[in-house]
Amino acid sequence: MKIIQYTNVNAVHYGSEEAKGIAARVVIGKNDGAENFCMRVFEFSPGGYSRRHSHDWEHEMFIHSGRGEFYSEGQWYSAITGDVVFIPSNEEHQIRNPDEELLIIVCPLASKAPEL
Amino acid sequence: MKIIQYTNVNAVHYGSEEAKGIAARVVIGKNDGAENFCMRVFEFSPGGYSRRHSHDWEHEMFIHSGRGEFYSEGQWYSAITGDVVFIPSNEEHQIRNPDEELLIIVCPLASKAPEL
Repeated sequence: MKIIQYTNVNAVHYGSEEAKGIAARVVIGKNDGAENFCMRVFEFSPGGYSRRHSHDWEHEMFIHSGRGEFYSEGQWYSAITGDVVFIPSNEEHQIRNPDEELLIIVCPLASKAPEL
Repeated sequence: MKIIQYTNVNAVHYGSEEAKGIAARVVIGKNDGAENFCMRVFEFSPGGYSRRHSHDWEHEMFIHSGRGEFYSEGQWYSAITGDVVFIPSNEEHQIRNPDEELLIIVCPLASKAPEL
């Protein structure tokens, strides 16, 4: 068994024009022996956003803290602490943090996808 | 895209001697078209506990709120809000809530396993 506070895992920081203000952590992954999916935790700083893209695996997210906006099919939708967000395979999506507090998202991912 | 507050999903309640004080919710699953894994959220009431068991799929958990104790290889370990817990396949495990506040755990699961 492994127990670790997610902030004690090294983060990858995204800071380009395409995706910025994101700290991404693979908190459980193939290195731990996780065979079927990994677990990532993303922190979006105020004003941070991800790249708009799509891929052939689904997203399943849990909002641990803060509020995010999620792009889907031409519109933005709001999700708050305690919300879960499901984005089916191949649906174009993007995430942004419109607020002044940190947005923290738990985002497991199927092992057929790159962990980050 | 689907966005829902996890408490708005119907819960299954465990209340036997073997496992008690647990409200279990499949917040994203096969019914949504999630192919690779599902997402469950468990609430453990104060004094609640799960069954001690093992199975051939891993657990990857994120503590959303509260503090839990996790049994592994003869000992109990504590995990708090923001901790992640990895339990490898086939490792015997059990969870209990020793505190007076609700323990809330995000627990995705590989689709080869039953959702609950």
